[in-house]
Amino acid sequence: MARIKVDEHSSRKDIIVSKAASLFREKGYKATSMRELADAVGVEAASLYNHIHSKTEILHVICFNVANRFMSHMESIELENVSAIVKVEKLLRFHIKEMLHQYEEVYVSDREWKHLTDPYLSNFQNQRRTYRKRFAAIIEKGIAAGEIKSIDAPTAVLIMLHAVSGIESWHRSTAKISGKELEENMVTIMVDGLRK
Amino acid sequence: MARIKVDEHSSRKDIIVSKAASLFREKGYKATSMRELADAVGVEAASLYNHIHSKTEILHVICFNVANRFMSHMESIELENVSAIVKVEKLLRFHIKEMLHQYEEVYVSDREWKHLTDPYLSNFQNQRRTYRKRFAAIIEKGIAAGEIKSIDAPTAVLIMLHAVSGIESWHRSTAKISGKELEENMVTIMVDGLRK
Repeated sequence: MARIKVDEHSSRKDIIVSKAASLFREKGYKATSMRELADAVGVEAASLYNHIHSKTEILHVICFNVANRFMSHMESIELENVSAIVKVEKLLRFHIKEMLHQYEEVYVSDREWKHLTDPYLSNFQNQRRTYRKRFAAIIEKGIAAGEIKSIDAPTAVLIMLHAVSGIESWHRSTAKISGKELEENMVTIMVDGLRK
Repeated sequence: MARIKVDEHSSRKDIIVSKAASLFREKGYKATSMRELADAVGVEAASLYNHIHSKTEILHVICFNVANRFMSHMESIELENVSAIVKVEKLLRFHIKEMLHQYEEVYVSDREWKHLTDPYLSNFQNQRRTYRKRFAAIIEKGIAAGEIKSIDAPTAVLIMLHAVSGIESWHRSTAKISGKELEENMVTIMVDGLRK
């Protein structure tokens, strides 16, 4: 029976999680079996269980990897000594890069989190709500400072996060501009749309 | 056995399709059974088949109702004698209103069309692609006319359509602004973001 191959940068568990993210993105969490995951990793299903306990645990790891990365990035942005509109631009660029370069994990955490079970489900929903509130609070500061138009901050967050999740259709498109061009276009349209 | 109640405005089939859209939105197309649909309509499963042939037929009706409505609206916009940026604003407002007032049907056609089967599947995918191309062509005209910034038109379409599909999270949110305010905020941010 083949052993799970590892290089110096990835643990066996990381490899399993990464293959799982790719399958969950393609087929959906519910429709993916541990058997298919084992095939994708190149081992017998039984040996997966040396590294993870269940399919739910993998979803949990994927969702919280992403949520924790988003949250710690938000904290670093909040602490920066720059204007609110610059913070908004940095947050937008961060999310675009996440959807470009950590596509499968971010997509799965965005679309499949509903299959988490408690306490993880409520914890994840809380993190999402908190994240959006902190993002909106930065926009509110920009409005108060006269840098950003007087718009509804939660709507601006909704627009930006959903437009970014649309990068999914960019990934699937055949004739597409580069990731860098996509980023610049999105920033031009949305940050300019907010600027007073 | 109860008969399907109708009023003068809706045929029995319309009622079935509307209840199905609501169930498909809530539970997903795959997870909804004809049995559950019959319960929601208030009849025995067997009597559904007097009006429709299969669950697939219902999905087909939902997706093409929406696609045909989008396409005929696009045609009317293309024929209007107004500037490109005004056309873009009208298209955006149309999509927002569709997501506000025809939410379940539009949501299902946007998220569940992958379950269509050929020839409907390829036909639907073609309509989506054509629709986005015609939307992008209006933006290109606006760029050529100097009304719209020199941005990548397909990216602008991606941003607008995905931001609008985010109205799904507005529907689920508890503390929310009115539909009209949402529309004005989205237009302010996105149309201003495009305007040169």
